[in-house]
Amino acid sequence: MFLYGESKEMMFHVAGLLLFTRPSRTHPDHLRHLMDDLREGHPTVHPPWNLRLRTPDLLRNPLQSWVEADDVDLEYHVRRTALPSPGDERELGIVVSRLHGHHIDFHRPPWELHLIENLDHDRFAIYVKVHHALVDGFTAMRLLVNALSTDPEDRDRPLFFSIPQPERPPREPTAQEPGGLHFPELLATVRAQYGTTKTVLRALAKVLQGEDDLVTPRQAPKCIINARISRSRRFATQILQIDRLKAVARAVGGTLNDAILAVSSASLRRYLLEIDALPADPLVAMVPVAVRAKDDAGGGNAVGAILASLATHQADPARRIAEIVASTKHAKQQLQGMSKAAILSYSALLLAPSMLQTVPGIAGRIKPTYNVVISNVPGPDHALYFRGAQLEAAYPMSIPIHGQALNITCNSYAGRMCFGFTGCRDTLPHMQRLAVFAGEALGELERAVL
Amino acid sequence: MFLYGESKEMMFHVAGLLLFTRPSRTHPDHLRHLMDDLREGHPTVHPPWNLRLRTPDLLRNPLQSWVEADDVDLEYHVRRTALPSPGDERELGIVVSRLHGHHIDFHRPPWELHLIENLDHDRFAIYVKVHHALVDGFTAMRLLVNALSTDPEDRDRPLFFSIPQPERPPREPTAQEPGGLHFPELLATVRAQYGTTKTVLRALAKVLQGEDDLVTPRQAPKCIINARISRSRRFATQILQIDRLKAVARAVGGTLNDAILAVSSASLRRYLLEIDALPADPLVAMVPVAVRAKDDAGGGNAVGAILASLATHQADPARRIAEIVASTKHAKQQLQGMSKAAILSYSALLLAPSMLQTVPGIAGRIKPTYNVVISNVPGPDHALYFRGAQLEAAYPMSIPIHGQALNITCNSYAGRMCFGFTGCRDTLPHMQRLAVFAGEALGELERAVL
Repeated sequence: MFLYGESKEMMFHVAGLLLFTRPSRTHPDHLRHLMDDLREGHPTVHPPWNLRLRTPDLLRNPLQSWVEADDVDLEYHVRRTALPSPGDERELGIVVSRLHGHHIDFHRPPWELHLIENLDHDRFAIYVKVHHALVDGFTAMRLLVNALSTDPEDRDRPLFFSIPQPERPPREPTAQEPGGLHFPELLATVRAQYGTTKTVLRALAKVLQGEDDLVTPRQAPKCIINARISRSRRFATQILQIDRLKAVARAVGGTLNDAILAVSSASLRRYLLEIDALPADPLVAMVPVAVRAKDDAGGGNAVGAILASLATHQADPARRIAEIVASTKHAKQQLQGMSKAAILSYSALLLAPSMLQTVPGIAGRIKPTYNVVISNVPGPDHALYFRGAQLEAAYPMSIPIHGQALNITCNSYAGRMCFGFTGCRDTLPHMQRLAVFAGEALGELERAVL
Repeated sequence: MFLYGESKEMMFHVAGLLLFTRPSRTHPDHLRHLMDDLREGHPTVHPPWNLRLRTPDLLRNPLQSWVEADDVDLEYHVRRTALPSPGDERELGIVVSRLHGHHIDFHRPPWELHLIENLDHDRFAIYVKVHHALVDGFTAMRLLVNALSTDPEDRDRPLFFSIPQPERPPREPTAQEPGGLHFPELLATVRAQYGTTKTVLRALAKVLQGEDDLVTPRQAPKCIINARISRSRRFATQILQIDRLKAVARAVGGTLNDAILAVSSASLRRYLLEIDALPADPLVAMVPVAVRAKDDAGGGNAVGAILASLATHQADPARRIAEIVASTKHAKQQLQGMSKAAILSYSALLLAPSMLQTVPGIAGRIKPTYNVVISNVPGPDHALYFRGAQLEAAYPMSIPIHGQALNITCNSYAGRMCFGFTGCRDTLPHMQRLAVFAGEALGELERAVL
């Protein structure tokens, strides 16, 4: 599915942006030395990082499969790059936005790692891009983070591709994993269940004709976010203390996820107001969730999605978050009352418009059932290190598609929530404001509800 | 034609890489200030730099045309980038190779300018990429160079796109211009005369059947250079004193161009020997030339091409250059005895295989009539400046196509010849050696013939 949809504008790769603080004892050119090590050491590249497509010139080949590459050219896959002066977060944002806007070369294993130097305050960054057809974003972030060390004295840690995986990473979240998943995974899971677009359309028709006992999704208002996208990307980040988010959530009887939605909502409202593009009706967020279905005795999680009102019509922060909490509570109750099969049908119904975006001609021309996807995936809660450098933040970068020019994904790490805003540069001008406003939104919420 | 051929692997953009020495009085962050000026000054973007395609999603539209863009987003087109440490020519080569391997966005005016900082010895670089369908390489380099100043005290020089052109730059070299042209221009001119590929094929068949009084081109040997290409590029540069090249040429009764061919030949021979890929028969170079046809009373130049043996089978440098001189003399005599029409027919015959490379399925699977294109275009012979920074070198970057994985193009500037080796990264491993060997080849030739 992700290969089928790939086009000049829609690129189905995900990425992680990791920021590190360089330990004082290391040489300023340590990233260069790391590259030299790689060149000279000829490290083994373990699956899945050594897999490439069998027919890269025919992405949509029904007999498409993964084959082991004879030789992985690490000088291609691992690259050095530098930030222009002054090397601040703004320049980092510009550079990774550009990197995220370049296509993956399908003639090689579809991943790239960029070592980014000249970041201020003695820091450096690692940007890892991987095509979603090889590894989903959830798994990629986990593999990336698992490849780091909990020990600051561990100075020989290999890069993630040289760490053998016990098995091919599973494509679906399992019950062992904490709840939460990224939008592309949800799309893939539903697609795997429903098969072709035609089948999805039939299911959709059935639901709309009232033959199925499901709630028809509410209509999302028209918004600039739901336009066709161009090839260019913009990425912006924000990092917030989880304790602060939780305190706000507790004060209004909501969850951490509600606080994330409220921060995102405040930011979107202010951003859209400033460019005179705020719809009169509240924006609708699609939130991927993993829930326990009522008929599942095994305790496994079903993959689902809820629609939540972001209450962006509300100027008052306290009333806004209250409406968000009410909306998500209602949606989750609805989902929990369903069988596993019904949850999937419902999710398919919600996702049908997004799946149709991969059909040429339809892309970007369907009325949205939601305006924006907001995902929240738990990560490690303790500090991690790469060769003595402490991981400061791990931001997820996701996939804008036609009709969904913005994606908000959060990963938690060591007590902080790392927000990644991935968008289309041309559809959403000055998108970095979203990140700035999200930071200010938390303070506003605290003043309103604490 | 250049839009028709555009694909994931074949990108018909050309570029210029300009190296500057920063004057001692300027601030180290002057490039950043230049960007700030651009952002705040909202400079006018003059034709052709404000033109975009009418139907960018349908490149091959027969009704394709250029339209003025409503708004040129200079923050997109003008970018800053920085070299990783140590900021030497090797890192510069890596960065511009990557930039050259990215597609142009046809939804915008198809050009980009990159200000490259952190180049060692107080230098910086400007990389300008433009799609050949908008402006040919010859004209682009001229516009770029003309936008510079002859006065080191001129500190307000606008960038090239803000300098009004008297008219749309002509697509064909005129008699006023010094001889020499780039390969893509030759291809375009011949194509314009011959129309469709079918017509070219008919002309080709006619010649091969002996109905036309033309010499059938010699067969070039099989060589790794003439393989299909991938998406990745590698760029390498060399700069040589023109006086030294001319002295070598004089000593063997040849031209400056012969010396350029001899340097290229020595480099190719050594490079191919090292990777055990030197053909037993001599490599054949295609050299675009502008010659005076015997039937042209107006004194205009005809656009043509000669095939020259590079004598790469000769281990002895003196014998090698002697054979090259004999080969180009013979080819030029042949061309000068032809009518203007015949010169064009002959060029079409030579170029037919390259034109067929743009036909899907045929690309990269035709036996070459030549192995490599070597172009030499005269540039300004005096020093130029951009806001006080002296232009040190101006390297041309050209277009590898399927079957022609390497292109060698030279521009002269202020007494020096700037060689640009543009190649496919995967077809030609460690291509930067070609540039190193070219530098050493000149000394070898001097020792052999002076």
